[in-house]
Amino acid sequence: MEKSRIEKLAYIGGGSSYTPEFVEGFIQHEGEVEVDEIALHDINEDRLQVVGGMVERMLRYAELDTSVSLTTTRPEAIEGADFIVSAIRVGGLDARIRDEKIPLKYDVVGQETTGPGGTLKAWRTIPVALEIARDLEKYAPDAWYLNFTNPSGIITEAIFKNSDVKVVGLCNNPINVQMGLAIFFEVMPDEVFLEWVGLNHVNWIQRIFVRGVDKTEELIDRIEEMPYLNEFDPSLVKALGVIPTGYLRYYYNHTKMLEDLKGVEKTRGEVVREVERDLMEKYADPNQLVKPPELSLRGGALYSEAAMRLILSLMFDRRDVQILVTRNNGSIPDLPDDASVEVPCVVGAHGVTPLHMGPLPDTIRALCQQAKAWESWTVEAGVTGDRGAALMAMMTNPLVPSFEIAKALLDDMLPANRDFLWQFYPQTV
Amino acid sequence: MEKSRIEKLAYIGGGSSYTPEFVEGFIQHEGEVEVDEIALHDINEDRLQVVGGMVERMLRYAELDTSVSLTTTRPEAIEGADFIVSAIRVGGLDARIRDEKIPLKYDVVGQETTGPGGTLKAWRTIPVALEIARDLEKYAPDAWYLNFTNPSGIITEAIFKNSDVKVVGLCNNPINVQMGLAIFFEVMPDEVFLEWVGLNHVNWIQRIFVRGVDKTEELIDRIEEMPYLNEFDPSLVKALGVIPTGYLRYYYNHTKMLEDLKGVEKTRGEVVREVERDLMEKYADPNQLVKPPELSLRGGALYSEAAMRLILSLMFDRRDVQILVTRNNGSIPDLPDDASVEVPCVVGAHGVTPLHMGPLPDTIRALCQQAKAWESWTVEAGVTGDRGAALMAMMTNPLVPSFEIAKALLDDMLPANRDFLWQFYPQTV
Amino acid sequence: MEKSRIEKLAYIGGGSSYTPEFVEGFIQHEGEVEVDEIALHDINEDRLQVVGGMVERMLRYAELDTSVSLTTTRPEAIEGADFIVSAIRVGGLDARIRDEKIPLKYDVVGQETTGPGGTLKAWRTIPVALEIARDLEKYAPDAWYLNFTNPSGIITEAIFKNSDVKVVGLCNNPINVQMGLAIFFEVMPDEVFLEWVGLNHVNWIQRIFVRGVDKTEELIDRIEEMPYLNEFDPSLVKALGVIPTGYLRYYYNHTKMLEDLKGVEKTRGEVVREVERDLMEKYADPNQLVKPPELSLRGGALYSEAAMRLILSLMFDRRDVQILVTRNNGSIPDLPDDASVEVPCVVGAHGVTPLHMGPLPDTIRALCQQAKAWESWTVEAGVTGDRGAALMAMMTNPLVPSFEIAKALLDDMLPANRDFLWQFYPQTV
Amino acid sequence: MEKSRIEKLAYIGGGSSYTPEFVEGFIQHEGEVEVDEIALHDINEDRLQVVGGMVERMLRYAELDTSVSLTTTRPEAIEGADFIVSAIRVGGLDARIRDEKIPLKYDVVGQETTGPGGTLKAWRTIPVALEIARDLEKYAPDAWYLNFTNPSGIITEAIFKNSDVKVVGLCNNPINVQMGLAIFFEVMPDEVFLEWVGLNHVNWIQRIFVRGVDKTEELIDRIEEMPYLNEFDPSLVKALGVIPTGYLRYYYNHTKMLEDLKGVEKTRGEVVREVERDLMEKYADPNQLVKPPELSLRGGALYSEAAMRLILSLMFDRRDVQILVTRNNGSIPDLPDDASVEVPCVVGAHGVTPLHMGPLPDTIRALCQQAKAWESWTVEAGVTGDRGAALMAMMTNPLVPSFEIAKALLDDMLPANRDFLWQFYPQTV
Repeated sequence: MEKSRIEKLAYIGGGSSYTPEFVEGFIQHEGEVEVDEIALHDINEDRLQVVGGMVERMLRYAELDTSVSLTTTRPEAIEGADFIVSAIRVGGLDARIRDEKIPLKYDVVGQETTGPGGTLKAWRTIPVALEIARDLEKYAPDAWYLNFTNPSGIITEAIFKNSDVKVVGLCNNPINVQMGLAIFFEVMPDEVFLEWVGLNHVNWIQRIFVRGVDKTEELIDRIEEMPYLNEFDPSLVKALGVIPTGYLRYYYNHTKMLEDLKGVEKTRGEVVREVERDLMEKYADPNQLVKPPELSLRGGALYSEAAMRLILSLMFDRRDVQILVTRNNGSIPDLPDDASVEVPCVVGAHGVTPLHMGPLPDTIRALCQQAKAWESWTVEAGVTGDRGAALMAMMTNPLVPSFEIAKALLDDMLPANRDFLWQFYPQTV
Repeated sequence: MEKSRIEKLAYIGGGSSYTPEFVEGFIQHEGEVEVDEIALHDINEDRLQVVGGMVERMLRYAELDTSVSLTTTRPEAIEGADFIVSAIRVGGLDARIRDEKIPLKYDVVGQETTGPGGTLKAWRTIPVALEIARDLEKYAPDAWYLNFTNPSGIITEAIFKNSDVKVVGLCNNPINVQMGLAIFFEVMPDEVFLEWVGLNHVNWIQRIFVRGVDKTEELIDRIEEMPYLNEFDPSLVKALGVIPTGYLRYYYNHTKMLEDLKGVEKTRGEVVREVERDLMEKYADPNQLVKPPELSLRGGALYSEAAMRLILSLMFDRRDVQILVTRNNGSIPDLPDDASVEVPCVVGAHGVTPLHMGPLPDTIRALCQQAKAWESWTVEAGVTGDRGAALMAMMTNPLVPSFEIAKALLDDMLPANRDFLWQFYPQTV
Repeated sequence: MEKSRIEKLAYIGGGSSYTPEFVEGFIQHEGEVEVDEIALHDINEDRLQVVGGMVERMLRYAELDTSVSLTTTRPEAIEGADFIVSAIRVGGLDARIRDEKIPLKYDVVGQETTGPGGTLKAWRTIPVALEIARDLEKYAPDAWYLNFTNPSGIITEAIFKNSDVKVVGLCNNPINVQMGLAIFFEVMPDEVFLEWVGLNHVNWIQRIFVRGVDKTEELIDRIEEMPYLNEFDPSLVKALGVIPTGYLRYYYNHTKMLEDLKGVEKTRGEVVREVERDLMEKYADPNQLVKPPELSLRGGALYSEAAMRLILSLMFDRRDVQILVTRNNGSIPDLPDDASVEVPCVVGAHGVTPLHMGPLPDTIRALCQQAKAWESWTVEAGVTGDRGAALMAMMTNPLVPSFEIAKALLDDMLPANRDFLWQFYPQTV
Repeated sequence: MEKSRIEKLAYIGGGSSYTPEFVEGFIQHEGEVEVDEIALHDINEDRLQVVGGMVERMLRYAELDTSVSLTTTRPEAIEGADFIVSAIRVGGLDARIRDEKIPLKYDVVGQETTGPGGTLKAWRTIPVALEIARDLEKYAPDAWYLNFTNPSGIITEAIFKNSDVKVVGLCNNPINVQMGLAIFFEVMPDEVFLEWVGLNHVNWIQRIFVRGVDKTEELIDRIEEMPYLNEFDPSLVKALGVIPTGYLRYYYNHTKMLEDLKGVEKTRGEVVREVERDLMEKYADPNQLVKPPELSLRGGALYSEAAMRLILSLMFDRRDVQILVTRNNGSIPDLPDDASVEVPCVVGAHGVTPLHMGPLPDTIRALCQQAKAWESWTVEAGVTGDRGAALMAMMTNPLVPSFEIAKALLDDMLPANRDFLWQFYPQTV
């Protein structure tokens, strides 16, 4: 990529409440890169108009020249784009709420990224993600496909296993953890260097360096003082010898999470639905000229920052280190070469090259391999619609205790998602 | 080993109800090898006398010249032996019953070889197994240490990781499965060749050849007809693409096993205790001259046959193929080199060389890696008494759903076994 | 394979002077297996008649019922056969003599299996070997393809990389070395167990057990006493820590071999041509009823024995250990999975399963990897006719010191073999 | 490392003609870092005074505050240093000239880094390098040991295999190649990104990106236009599919190099001796205030630049990508984990983390593995003085054609270096 400006950026799922968060990134980095056009695509015309209007006002208020185009025809959005950002939710929040509620019947946490909920979300998403990839191949073969759609590790793997487009997966977790650790150690974020190993949402900090000094032992000893990570029992963290990140509480603390979730009145999906409703109202207000502060409740903190860093390094060949979702290629030798991992990478105009993180520590290897097996079986079943593969996906998920429960979950969740699972329920015309 | 006769064989745990089953092997193979002396060792003098008397009568009735010596001093039994057989149960059946009952409180199947019960059994056994290894190094350095003590994969790994004695682990499962498959396919047992992969009690038949013809697909399709293996749901076996063996029902079917076990009046340990009581009465009867048929209820079918095959091949350099527990050394590249595996091996006077079984199929890899992690952490904690390693062992067991349950099990089971866990509760004098 | 008799065995290259040696095997093992028909195929009608007549007389004299058929049409020989043996020499001895003479001009030993001579021999042979494989696929899809044709490792690899036929490569070297070592240690051949590692003609004895006792150190110390192996300098063998076998003298002792070969009047090919001429005269003599003793000068000692062992184990599911050329599949993890190796294998009706020999010792790894690279590039170029691959093959051969010499050899040897190298010189009609 | 200034930097081999080149780096980067003291150490008092004087004048002329101290006592130089730079030549140029001349007698190119000359240079250097490491452990345990001494891959590996000091090896080749390619493609050096794989002086450019665009094919096609790399035959480069760097001409073009070297009047060592003599005269001249231009003839172009980049990134946690010599750790999975490699690394205050370069291309794997075997055996013999290991080192060098030549070289070169080879000739007092 030898350009100094982005001629066109396509945002698939442009009617998402996150879109203003993403656009905010270009406003904050306006001195670094210019964008001629942002093309928002969504299948929901109403949301597209509301969010598109909000984005338009934000850009105008910030006095940027970027034009905004809205379309419900995907190839139109993608054609000629330099970057395609995907942030879609197939089936919407209704599907998410089902993903959360059904598993609870079987004493299983659904969890939209690491549990059976993630499995179903992936299966709904994969057919669309591959359609987007086909569109890229046809209408924007040199573009970067930046996948923000969860479960990001699975979707990204489905894409690079079934297409030659240039894809990279992004999550805002690493940047948030880095920020939290910088505050904890009272240094600037860039003074923290993390050996981050594992998969998207299934990862650990193998070693942490603060201004070049290894602080791993100190962080383990003081884990109770660290917000967010202090959910983990100190004896657990000490036994691991590495620092687990937040989503791992669904695995390590499944019993407690299950109790908690059974106790709450509303699932996370139901809470989010309300937050979204409020956000959409704000977006629809013609007097709303900047990103509303309530957006941060939605969970996408620093997403715009992470996205901008990635885009700028790809464009301007910065070759700095960022934690991204990419093809393993042996950087973690305990995992298959063709599987997605989330590790520190050097990002430049040439693409994304993982740093060699070496064999996983003995304390985390088996869980990471199991989660990877779940992810890769989820890809396999999500692409082929094979029932045996679907059973393997459900059984290998760390939250599912047995064949019996796996089978029951499949029998319940597949039909409930029938409308979105073309690969499992081929349409006859 | 260049001898044509066994001068001395030591049997550690000689007061076991299995001992006559083992001795039966030498009676059945009397034309192939002679044994000058069988030295039985046990710490329970009473049982030793009863079982020793039974063995003496069996040998006399069979008109063998083998002498029988009884001792409660282990080095005395081991000194100068060609083979040392270990079949011990530290803590006895009372401990086993505890291993089964405590986990049920937490909705976990205890299982004496593949569950938390196996973890505790291993921890009680490892200190003694290593003492035996020390005795071999000192009193019989060229002898073979044949480990029959469960969990055999863990105990064998503990020995070869901490000693240079020549050790091999043996289980009667492979020979029984092979026999069952021969009956199923209506051929002789030797006409069945199994690509048996995995760990002791955590294994699969990757491929089965009958008279050289690959019958894997056929067996998968007809799994419902095959006694014992028909416990597995056909859809599970079809998805796996390989054939799971019996102990895997504790993993795949944990939910069902848990329900079943919660429903029974007596645990398996309690049943065995009664069987043993009856057997001991028979053994004490001076008119009992042959192995009582009730012994087969005890669960050691064909143990004598498996043991004799191993001993004869080691002695007479037969270099035939037997399924044994040995150091991996890369024969299954997905597992650590220094871990124990159960695979087909060529057995000769030189020792035991695994056949190369290649990478594990995708459908079973993660579970096998997880079970191996559990086994190796159990070895680590069992040797060192480290609490962090103990937590890792408990957490990585496939039957334990979370850190919370792992911690609760440890807090309950460790103190309950305090008398036998020297490594965890160092004695001060 | 569930038969008790061989209905048909096809011998491709039946006009070879070796054929009677091979047939001798069936005469010596007549009590073990019966053969209904041996079909000899050759493109040279005259030699076929002479050798065919000799074989006919041998079988009649031995009073076997086996019929002999002669044909110059390959599919006719192959159709319906249980075993296909390939022992061909494309281009005949004239080509071999060229292979030996041209490299000497560049101070390189040609060597028909391990040097540039082997490269050219492979390139002449591969197109024919693949045609044979195509015939098997069509006319005898369940048959075993036993490759005796040198360079056996390369030809066998070319076949299994480009066909699904059941192929195994055989060499008489392992059985001869085992025999020599039995004599040396004054035991029976079966009392010697060799950990034989590497490639065909590029191999080492990693460990030797005699009656189960490790004699590796003793053999290294006494290497000067051992005929044939005493060509290697004791300091070399001591540094290696393993025992090199005979063909490795071309690599380790290239300088000396080159001097020797420059000093002789006739190349090995020229000597063999004379031996062959004499043998053919004997074969033509109607009074010659048994294998003439001069055949042993030809270099195929014990070939019939090695072949019979292989055939009998494949037929009768013996599952004994034999040293064979087969697909690596990870049995030597330092070499590619899809490359041929020569290692101990368990041979049964199911096929050939390599024993796991583990990582190569540090002292031999690099040479073995280099020789393997040469072999695999030779396969690649031999199949595709690609000039770049041909250059890689020539450069990676351990006897070729530089790009300059590799290029000169190619420029000289390719045109000299033009008539046989269809892949390099595609015919236009 | 949390400092903003270097308090002390020790330069071992400070009497080297290169020292002013190195010091020049600090003058050119004066705005980026300050150095309080440069301690020059040498065993040659005279040279130390001459070079020390030159360095003093350079710093004064540049108006830097850095003080210069001179010492022949190594611990004095090392004590309290932040960085230790090693640039020594044990045995001096006389030894180098011997390294070049002896092998020529056997038709072998000596070559001070990649041939038998490199082997002997390493053996002379390793004992001293390990003494320096011992001094670091004692007097400057937190310091970085920057190894500039050739053969850099071997010396660096000897250090990290035998010490826990923080060591990194540096060569000016990568930066020079990058500069050359930038000129070739008419871009800035930083716009070139190289996937550089292999070992020090045995490496290839796997892929080259110019402003993010893959230019590998173009460079291969235009190799004849590229100065320095045009020594390689286009057909060779095309067959390789990757770009060999300069020192590989000793391997690929051994035959031509040998002819060339046999034709020249003076060896490179003899030429360098004259250059050095002239340089020393300049250095001794009190009117010489800046680095004399003749220094560039010496071969160290851009060394100061490479060194400064490394030092600045280690100090200021820049985490940029530099091509360095470090422990493999699996970044090239075809080479041992504990071997040194030369690959792109991220360099920060935490240290040096290799990028994952993945499996070597088939075209270069075997040569790289062979060269690595030579290096690692050279380390082994250089540390232990074991004659078997020395033979392995000599035999595995790609320039040595046979055991016979290897033995002759050892018998000739070891005694010729007797004074410096303490490990091979232990002193008795």
